[in-house]
This record gives sequence, structure tokens and C-alpha cells, in this order.
Amino acid sequence: MSEQVGYLGPPGTFGEQVALLYQQQAGLHGELRPLDSHIAVVRAVDAGEIDFGVVAVENALGGAVPETLDAILASTNVWLCAEMTLPVDHNLIAAPGTKLEDVTVVMSHPNALAQCRGYLETHLPDARLEAALSTANAVEQAAHTAGVAGIGPRRSAEVYGGVILAQSIQDEGQNETRFVVLARHDAPPTGDDKTSIAFSVDHDRPGTLTGALSELSNRGLNMTHIQLRPSRRGLGLYIFLIDFQGHKTEPQVAEALAALEAQASLFRVLGSYPRFKGA
Amino acid sequence: MSEQVGYLGPPGTFGEQVALLYQQQAGLHGELRPLDSHIAVVRAVDAGEIDFGVVAVENALGGAVPETLDAILASTNVWLCAEMTLPVDHNLIAAPGTKLEDVTVVMSHPNALAQCRGYLETHLPDARLEAALSTANAVEQAAHTAGVAGIGPRRSAEVYGGVILAQSIQDEGQNETRFVVLARHDAPPTGDDKTSIAFSVDHDRPGTLTGALSELSNRGLNMTHIQLRPSRRGLGLYIFLIDFQGHKTEPQVAEALAALEAQASLFRVLGSYPRFKGA
Repeated sequence: MSEQVGYLGPPGTFGEQVALLYQQQAGLHGELRPLDSHIAVVRAVDAGEIDFGVVAVENALGGAVPETLDAILASTNVWLCAEMTLPVDHNLIAAPGTKLEDVTVVMSHPNALAQCRGYLETHLPDARLEAALSTANAVEQAAHTAGVAGIGPRRSAEVYGGVILAQSIQDEGQNETRFVVLARHDAPPTGDDKTSIAFSVDHDRPGTLTGALSELSNRGLNMTHIQLRPSRRGLGLYIFLIDFQGHKTEPQVAEALAALEAQASLFRVLGSYPRFKGA
Repeated sequence: MSEQVGYLGPPGTFGEQVALLYQQQAGLHGELRPLDSHIAVVRAVDAGEIDFGVVAVENALGGAVPETLDAILASTNVWLCAEMTLPVDHNLIAAPGTKLEDVTVVMSHPNALAQCRGYLETHLPDARLEAALSTANAVEQAAHTAGVAGIGPRRSAEVYGGVILAQSIQDEGQNETRFVVLARHDAPPTGDDKTSIAFSVDHDRPGTLTGALSELSNRGLNMTHIQLRPSRRGLGLYIFLIDFQGHKTEPQVAEALAALEAQASLFRVLGSYPRFKGA
């Protein structure tokens, strides 16, 4: 099959690494399509211009996540069909032949620079820090400029012909980034699945959220994630985004979803998909 | 009184704007101290080097927030004593005399550039985008370079002598950033307060979170925010960060806190403070 998979470009980003991994795991053979923003990825899936879209929902580089969720909620044809959680992977990358002591400038997305502060203070205390629009962009420049190193994912070294001077240099070794794969359908049950939903309850009445959540817990459905987004419809209104174990086709899940929908002012099943078990 | 207030520098950031506002509201007359990172702000409060620290907990520019929360949880002397929620404020700023049609380069933190994408595509479709380490840094450069505009908060135009070519250019007019003020104590009751807590429950048992939350809702305590952070102690363990209405000295709140603590494997009151009612 020849399905197009979109991701937040340019090539060499962590998103491309995840898109490649999804292609491989799902046995797809189509083209990878770098797009301008996470919102553009969501819209391209919604419009049928690409078959799958990879977006970060808990982004180690920050910033893009609320927009991604809002764009998913604003799209009518977009479903979650897979999730992938990968460790944050920041590497120090430079032109071939460069040694660590040659590095006088370190470039990257400012959030990546901040996440590697400890390493930089210890190993490159005199290097000047420079901002780049993306980690891939930093590595692209570094791979062709003497004395400059870029911070980016492993994949960006391959794409732009750089060498890795130091790997996994982020301060917090355990940080992970969660990606979801979007399509115009969700995934069939595998026996070990998760379901993501979005709903609003009356914010000003204590207990409405507890009541809603007990529809899950009373049926033994374990919540794996909860997140709150302000609603566009006014201050004090929130949308809860909840992930829990189970597939929407399982009877207990279907019952819980119906009970939740009855209590919610806004309700949407975002999709059921296999639980990620590692790369 | 002469209390030092720390914030994420350089001067001219949104954080400085908030620190100034807090100084004014609290009637403080000390020095403002720009620091290198949100973590440095938390640690300086913890160590008694500054009296107050302003940190973003839902940062419009992304990235810093998880680190901030983790640093607060890792500090033993740090309490939340105030909150401030302000609309995101991105302005196009350039050297005096510059007209919009003179602008050929737009600089800012990449996340700020992304948040102004719509404006830039409409009004400056041919401008080249360049990354800066912070919005303040971008405005500092722009204010002294012909043809370059920076995107930053209103305050950065004052600090670096730039003029505002266009105000509030972010795509999403309603976005807000929430800051908290840290000190080595929380705040006395005012009759309209909030309390922030952190706790962990056994993640693998459905209903444990619901049970914990019902300690609040059963007492009529309205939850205003809920957030989940992975715990450093292992995969599948989470820390819930919850804000609710009420002061820890009110009897119902004290009861709920005691009941929550009894069910939690980790429990911490982060502070009670006045509900923010606008600048």
C-alpha cells in the first residue's frame, strides 16, 4: 500500500523519526510529507490530502501541543489510530571531523538549548548559544559550518550529514514525548487498547467531573491520562481530555461512553487504538 | 519593605511584566532580579536568595512548565503565595521610524513566531523568519537594526527603545498564561482563595483518583484545575496537581486535605493564595 504520512517538518525532526517508525510498524510504503505546522498536519488528514499524520501531544519542545489538540477538536474527520511514546533524544551534532573542543557555538531551538543546560554548562561552558527555528534547522547549519554544533535528534545527523559528538545530552534522562497518529478512522480492537475522549462538564458545580470519571472507574476502566484545556466558548469552561484502557467496541467501554455523553455538554470519542508497547 | 523579586530574564520578558505587576499589587519596593531559568528562580527562593519568584506554570511559549513544576516539587521551602493570569501579548516591535513595509526580517522565539503565523502570512508574507533565544532578545536586536522587527511583549519595547508596529498579533486572541508567585510561605486567607496540592495515588487501580477527588467535591470544593505529571519514581506513576477554591485554614478544606493525605502515597500542599481577579 502507498499511504502518505505527514509530520511537522523539516526532515530530520523528531517527528520524522516517529513517522518512519510508524511506517515500519504499520507496513506502509508511501511517501513521508513534511508540513509547516502541527495544525497543517491535522488539516491535511481532515481534508484527505494525506492518509496519516504524526503529531506530538506532549511535546518535549513545547508550544505546539495546545494548538494540536485544539485543531483535532475542530476537525470532523480526524481520529486517533495509534500512539507512540519515545524518550526525548537530544544529541550534539557537528560537521564530520569536528571535536568537542572545536565547538564555539551551539545552535538549536531555544527549548532544546534549555533542556540541555546542564550538559552545556559542564562540557561547553564557553560556547555561545544561538537560536534556530527548529532542531533540524540547527543541525543543517551546524553540519556545514566549522566550530558550530547543533542540538537535535539522531535522525537529523543522518539527514544533514553531521556526526554525533555526544548523545542523549538532555538534563532529564526520563523525559518522554508522546505522539499520536491521526487518520480518518481509528483502529480495530487488539485486546490491549486505549480510548481517548474529550468532554466538557459544568465547571461551576463541584462533583460533576468526579461523577463523570466514576463512569469509568465504576466499570474498572483505568484512566491513563487526564488533561484539561480551556474551552474557546468562554472563561471558566474547560474541556477534559481523557485516555483510558479499553476499546470503544468493548461492552463496558461502550456503556461508560454512553453514560458520559449523557452528562456532558460537549462529548467526542477521539479514537480507540492499540496501547504502545515500545519501538 | 525592600523585597527582591526574581523572574526569568532578560529584562523585557513577559515574566518581568508580571513581576512588576506583582510588586505594584503587593506594595513591594525592592529590586527585580532577572535569572537564567525558571528552575533558577525556584532554587533562589528555596535558598532564601530572593524573597519572591515569578514563574509561568502554563507558559504560552512552552517548554519551561514541566521543569518549573518539577523544581517546585523538589524544593522543600517553596510555597505558592499568589497567582496571576494574563492574556498572551505578542507585539511587532521595531526601531523608531520603521514602517510595516520596511520589515524584511521578523525575529523571535520560535514558539512566538508559530503563535503569530496567521498575522505574519497575511501582513508580512515575504519577510524572512529568524529565531532568537527569547522574545526580549529578539526585540533588543530589532530595536537597533533597520528592516528587522521582533515579536515580544509590550514591556520589551519600553526596555529596548523599540516602537510597536502592531499589537496583539497572536493568532489566538483568548490564550492566557498563568503565573504563580513563589515565596517561603503561602498567603493568609482573604475569603476568596485557592489552594494548590500535589499528590500521587496508586495508578493501576481504577477509581483511586475518583475517590480522592470526591474528597473535594463531597465538601463542595470546586476544582479549578487538574494536571498530571509523570513521577520521577517510575513509569506509570503520576503526580496530580490540583487547584481548588478555598483556603487551607477553612475547616472543610482542612478536612479534605487530611482525607486526601490518608489516601495518597505522596502528598503536599503547595500553598493557599488569593484568587486572581485581574490586573
